[in-house]
Amino acid sequence: MTRGDLLERTLSSIGPPDEAAGADTLRLLDAKTKPPGSLGRLEELACRLAGIRSEVPPRPLVPAIVVAAADHGVAARGVSAYPQEVTAQMLANFASGGAAICVLAREAGARLVVVDAGVIGGAEIAGVRSEIVDGVRGTDDLTLGPAMSRSTVMGAIERGIALTWQLSRDGVEIVGLGEMGIGNTTAASALTAAWLAEDPERVCGPGTGLDDDGLARKIGAVRRGLALHGLPRRDADPVDVLAAVGGLEIAYLVGVCLGAAASRLAILLDGFITSAAALMAAGMQPLSAASMIAATRSPEPGHALVLEALGLEPLIDLRLRLGEGTGAALALPLVRSAVAILTGMATFDSAGVRGRAARLDDLMPVVADG
Amino acid sequence: MTRGDLLERTLSSIGPPDEAAGADTLRLLDAKTKPPGSLGRLEELACRLAGIRSEVPPRPLVPAIVVAAADHGVAARGVSAYPQEVTAQMLANFASGGAAICVLAREAGARLVVVDAGVIGGAEIAGVRSEIVDGVRGTDDLTLGPAMSRSTVMGAIERGIALTWQLSRDGVEIVGLGEMGIGNTTAASALTAAWLAEDPERVCGPGTGLDDDGLARKIGAVRRGLALHGLPRRDADPVDVLAAVGGLEIAYLVGVCLGAAASRLAILLDGFITSAAALMAAGMQPLSAASMIAATRSPEPGHALVLEALGLEPLIDLRLRLGEGTGAALALPLVRSAVAILTGMATFDSAGVRGRAARLDDLMPVVADG
Repeated sequence: MTRGDLLERTLSSIGPPDEAAGADTLRLLDAKTKPPGSLGRLEELACRLAGIRSEVPPRPLVPAIVVAAADHGVAARGVSAYPQEVTAQMLANFASGGAAICVLAREAGARLVVVDAGVIGGAEIAGVRSEIVDGVRGTDDLTLGPAMSRSTVMGAIERGIALTWQLSRDGVEIVGLGEMGIGNTTAASALTAAWLAEDPERVCGPGTGLDDDGLARKIGAVRRGLALHGLPRRDADPVDVLAAVGGLEIAYLVGVCLGAAASRLAILLDGFITSAAALMAAGMQPLSAASMIAATRSPEPGHALVLEALGLEPLIDLRLRLGEGTGAALALPLVRSAVAILTGMATFDSAGVRGRAARLDDLMPVVADG
Repeated sequence: MTRGDLLERTLSSIGPPDEAAGADTLRLLDAKTKPPGSLGRLEELACRLAGIRSEVPPRPLVPAIVVAAADHGVAARGVSAYPQEVTAQMLANFASGGAAICVLAREAGARLVVVDAGVIGGAEIAGVRSEIVDGVRGTDDLTLGPAMSRSTVMGAIERGIALTWQLSRDGVEIVGLGEMGIGNTTAASALTAAWLAEDPERVCGPGTGLDDDGLARKIGAVRRGLALHGLPRRDADPVDVLAAVGGLEIAYLVGVCLGAAASRLAILLDGFITSAAALMAAGMQPLSAASMIAATRSPEPGHALVLEALGLEPLIDLRLRLGEGTGAALALPLVRSAVAILTGMATFDSAGVRGRAARLDDLMPVVADG
């Protein structure tokens, strides 16, 4: 199979959500012993999950979190508060269980899949799934040329798609996205500015802790990169945009989004970087957005823009700006609870509880004026 | 012991939070392999829990949810979309495990304590903790006279205090508050309007599903009740306000708040009604507010006012308007995760991860202009 074939096949196999399953789930919810809609967005979530999975009621979803790491040439522009070697060090920390996402995935009962999508020095780390395409470890500096080739982008996307097949075979039903890569908020900002035609100043933020000078350098790097690559551009191909200013882990996560949507797995986004990957996936196949659930909103200004473009409202807002999939892990119990109310709750009939009055006046004695 | 003695003793035994424990916890968090503060409000929560429990790091907290139910004379004014008999029917549903809070408490691994604080017809329900004071089942109509006597209020509060002692002896370390009572958003609205000197129109909302006429009746009932009892009034005694326009389950939950604060249990609020109880508890002893954590913000307009008065920001915002403790149950995994990061995560030293650069310039080669 030629590189690109799997991507094409996947894009064309993504279908719309099962609207009937969502509607049936709403009817089930309305029979439960609670005022209609009183569980708010938890009910919307249950209906969306039914539509994604095409299952009424949806069963408890077996979760996995995929944390993909890679390095970024643009880190040389001083756009992160941390040195590049931290990417490999954190990859090792993911593998040995000491990172925040390891703790939070354990708490959420989720399997954690740690992926090396192109970390400099990542080869020597045990317990990591190696997904190196064309031998590329670390993108090139997007301010000086393309971050990578189109072919490498497609290779990374197809690796992500293949992972979702395996996860699906293993019984996974919801995939949380996570990432790590020194400099990757700059790549995500460039993708967002390019795809949404936004000014870099409106998109870039301090990431994991830049000072004002660092933020100015980041905005400058995004601006230079976009100018160099002629972006934003109407009708740009998402693969071209990813090649110009993207990242290896971001391209991999684009593949996870597309593969998950094709396999009817629910997709739980994390922070800004995973959401930028989701944005590019939706750019390639708009139907994939129907499978996405926003876990969290990071304080990074670009994140709100991306979520709005995807039409998603996050479940939690704890001002997380760590990434790694931590927001996705924290939102998993809400997903589990949304499904549990469907299977665990009594109905008005089964519990002998009287429903809402047809006419409120039936409930009232004569009420005095005043 | 005379009624009122236990309340007085409890109020005087509530101390301030352990600020040093909070500061020590922040130092522990800053050594973990993540940018300082990048887990956002989860870190604030961990520090607050350490201060409440006076324990560094705080251990995983054993949770219980107390759902207190009672009836309200004001229901006769047509202020709810449901008939009064639903309170007793839902109490039975809590006891038999079919209600939303039963499902969500199970999901959260929390013990559920179902309390009959004055439900009409509640006597015949098995599996319920009966906490009837002075034989009162259901308050009187607050638009016609006091909802109950001062002595009954104090009795209900002291029952709530006594429950927290037992929970504490049983090893419970965090108490989620829940409630049920047809008409109780009207009582909570009256308490809020009286205590915060707000216009009833700014406080009242549709509760679990009132139409416009019903909402107008509710605002009218609160207005009449406040006028009848001369509220709001500077330097009003919270016990008097509770007697005038409160509820039996609300007074009971005031006691749970005060007893929990005295025993250094963390308190997890739920929706508007439990938060109104917390507001009255803080009115009696302002130090008790330091033990309170806001789980959720309901769309009921009074809830935002109460949370602001308590200085609390909710952890989740899913537009829940069910009550029962469902928001508290949904927030419990976040509390558990906040503690877990403290015990489960590696430090920069232990994981061999390089920290933030002292000077960002150290990370950068010469950067070209432009």
